[in-house]
Amino acid sequence: MNRTLVSEVKHHIGENIMLQGWIHQIRPLGKINFVILRDRTGIVQTIVLDPKIDISGLERESAITIYGKAKTEKQAPGGFEVEVTGIEVIEKAIPPLPFEINRATELTNVKIDTILDHRPFSLRNPELASIFRVQAEIVRAFADFLRADGFLQMHTSKIISAGTEGGTNLFPIQYFEQTAYLAQSPQFYKQMMVGAGYERVFEIGFVYRAEDHATSRHINEYLSLDFEMGFIESEQDVINQEIKLLKYIFASLRKNCEAELKLHKVELPEFEMIPQIRLADAIKIIKEKFGKNLEIENDLDPEGERLICEYTQKEFNSDFVYITHYPASGRPFYTMPTEAGLTKGFDLLYKGLEVTTGSQRINNYEMLVDNMKKFGLEPENFEFYLEIFKFGMPPHGGLAIGTERLTQQILNLKNIREASLFPRDRYRLTP
Amino acid sequence: MNRTLVSEVKHHIGENIMLQGWIHQIRPLGKINFVILRDRTGIVQTIVLDPKIDISGLERESAITIYGKAKTEKQAPGGFEVEVTGIEVIEKAIPPLPFEINRATELTNVKIDTILDHRPFSLRNPELASIFRVQAEIVRAFADFLRADGFLQMHTSKIISAGTEGGTNLFPIQYFEQTAYLAQSPQFYKQMMVGAGYERVFEIGFVYRAEDHATSRHINEYLSLDFEMGFIESEQDVINQEIKLLKYIFASLRKNCEAELKLHKVELPEFEMIPQIRLADAIKIIKEKFGKNLEIENDLDPEGERLICEYTQKEFNSDFVYITHYPASGRPFYTMPTEAGLTKGFDLLYKGLEVTTGSQRINNYEMLVDNMKKFGLEPENFEFYLEIFKFGMPPHGGLAIGTERLTQQILNLKNIREASLFPRDRYRLTP
Repeated sequence: MNRTLVSEVKHHIGENIMLQGWIHQIRPLGKINFVILRDRTGIVQTIVLDPKIDISGLERESAITIYGKAKTEKQAPGGFEVEVTGIEVIEKAIPPLPFEINRATELTNVKIDTILDHRPFSLRNPELASIFRVQAEIVRAFADFLRADGFLQMHTSKIISAGTEGGTNLFPIQYFEQTAYLAQSPQFYKQMMVGAGYERVFEIGFVYRAEDHATSRHINEYLSLDFEMGFIESEQDVINQEIKLLKYIFASLRKNCEAELKLHKVELPEFEMIPQIRLADAIKIIKEKFGKNLEIENDLDPEGERLICEYTQKEFNSDFVYITHYPASGRPFYTMPTEAGLTKGFDLLYKGLEVTTGSQRINNYEMLVDNMKKFGLEPENFEFYLEIFKFGMPPHGGLAIGTERLTQQILNLKNIREASLFPRDRYRLTP
Repeated sequence: MNRTLVSEVKHHIGENIMLQGWIHQIRPLGKINFVILRDRTGIVQTIVLDPKIDISGLERESAITIYGKAKTEKQAPGGFEVEVTGIEVIEKAIPPLPFEINRATELTNVKIDTILDHRPFSLRNPELASIFRVQAEIVRAFADFLRADGFLQMHTSKIISAGTEGGTNLFPIQYFEQTAYLAQSPQFYKQMMVGAGYERVFEIGFVYRAEDHATSRHINEYLSLDFEMGFIESEQDVINQEIKLLKYIFASLRKNCEAELKLHKVELPEFEMIPQIRLADAIKIIKEKFGKNLEIENDLDPEGERLICEYTQKEFNSDFVYITHYPASGRPFYTMPTEAGLTKGFDLLYKGLEVTTGSQRINNYEMLVDNMKKFGLEPENFEFYLEIFKFGMPPHGGLAIGTERLTQQILNLKNIREASLFPRDRYRLTP
């Protein structure tokens, strides 16, 4: 007998079916007993009327097979249930359970660290599980949109001999006799691949930052959604590409993750354009509207990000805002300069959090080498990166989106760790 | 004026267009000159008839813009060419070129290490570039097929506190004050995610093996295509899933990579089933048909893999063969045992090379703990993995496909490094 998925039960009313999954709840009411079964597609109520079927030995979260007849039942969730004719335990759960996962209200009292310590078990909670269905859809939509627009998916090494941003915040690896490092971004590689002739590339891969802070917005290993495109006019081409991409991702989520968004009480607004504010203007606005002086001049701090988003939400009714014209002092050496010490670098903020960093890059060999020296880097250490710039590098630019941050902001999660399956942070290396 | 891609020129005959790309070749014939332009979609011949257009300063591989009129021309490749009205150099190439990349015959004399030392430049050769278009299509097809079949894409940490296979061949990472390791496979995580209730998961990600050998079939960082599925009957469900998957991948390549396969003179045969041979029988066949005694008993060596594939090619007209019933001594502790010291583990060989390892896994908690001890591992070090097995772990199994090996075998490449964009091996850490 073939297994019927919970989501398919409604198409089999009146038929004898076989279900498989986990015992979500048991409700023994004496003569009538309910066993709530959960599989990867949902939850279904099964009703045990036959007194010969003994449910006294069942343990919640056991893996089971239920045989029964699907029938309509107005009082059951979804309007149908399964009348049980047989139950087989596949693997019995060994109590106690680490915590309750079958009611959302109870789970809100469980600390994030307890949830992460028992990560696979915690994901049996439908609300937590839905976070990674949303994340998978973000990743799918990112790849499909770019692929359809002529971008090639690439996979570049995460073991590197030199850092992309000057050697700070790197995790060292013992690579046979040599010391290597975990890649902080595929930055060099995606530029090299544009120059290799692919012109348009994207990568979905982990990157690593050995940053010491333990905040609700930082993890040390995160999934970076990168793209890079050649033959552009300016960084505005990159921004426009991202706006189209984000629209597609949001439309995909509205269409394919309706249930998941509902579980999180999230509505994703449609949007046409995203406002842009120069960093200097943003700093001025934050000072004038909120009376706050930022301590830095070449970036926004977390509070600054929140305040400027509060402003753009009120002023432009936009969850998003691009901050542009960052000073060269706050951006990497490969960022294309523009007037007065500023660059063609930009960030995208979303509901108070930076989710994207991008720019037009320098494409002229001599200019890149000069800028490297200005930043105190030695070009001879970067020959592997610089060589392709000798052979006709077109104007190009790109960006990187933090997958966990985007997931966090879409679902209004408090902590970025909730949006990482197995987060790695200052202190966490397991599970 | 909008850019026209080379692949679109044929739809603009008679029109004035703008092309952008690189100078693939220059053929100065005196009064008539040809400039061959290459972009990400192909190569087109442009003809310079206007004596006012000076091509004497052009350097091959420079990035350029060409303005001109598209017209039919029987003698041109593809039946059309572009008559040039203007050329602008975007970025001039600085000679000398590391080697010639515009003729396949010349490239065959370039050593693999030279190609890799100049990796981005080498990819300007259409034949080399096509390898990674094929690889991207393999990856896309893998994900799309599984997604459509209810599998969730996951991204699990590559920084782990303990090895999946007993602590050998691990690259150590200095993770703040602790020593961690690069993941050898997402094995534990994919099993945990089945138990987390997703039932069916897949991952596309790099894995790391600190193996000391330098052969044409090993790299130390490779892209692993993993899937894992729950509520199976046996390892045959996993094998059947892979056969359907491979058929889809091959059909996708035939459909979407026709030009790339042609460049490599590859025809991908259709197939229905894949023969299965028990390891003990394979060893016997190799001895009887080829007179070769294998030195090991619990696996095939590289020559054994080639010989058994020679046999199955001749006997069953199949490029593929599953080797099954590996002894427990040669498989990891989580492999489901079957009769007489054997396991439900299998390998898939393709044209003489192992491209997949898989198995049904142990799903009973006590059995798994016992087996761990038998293998000399301490269960208390693996609590993070074992916990979910206490809570009703369904029968499950899965496999991992080596992306570079599959690419290598499909395109008949001599060395696995040719199928890795930026390979990492015993001695290579750059580019």
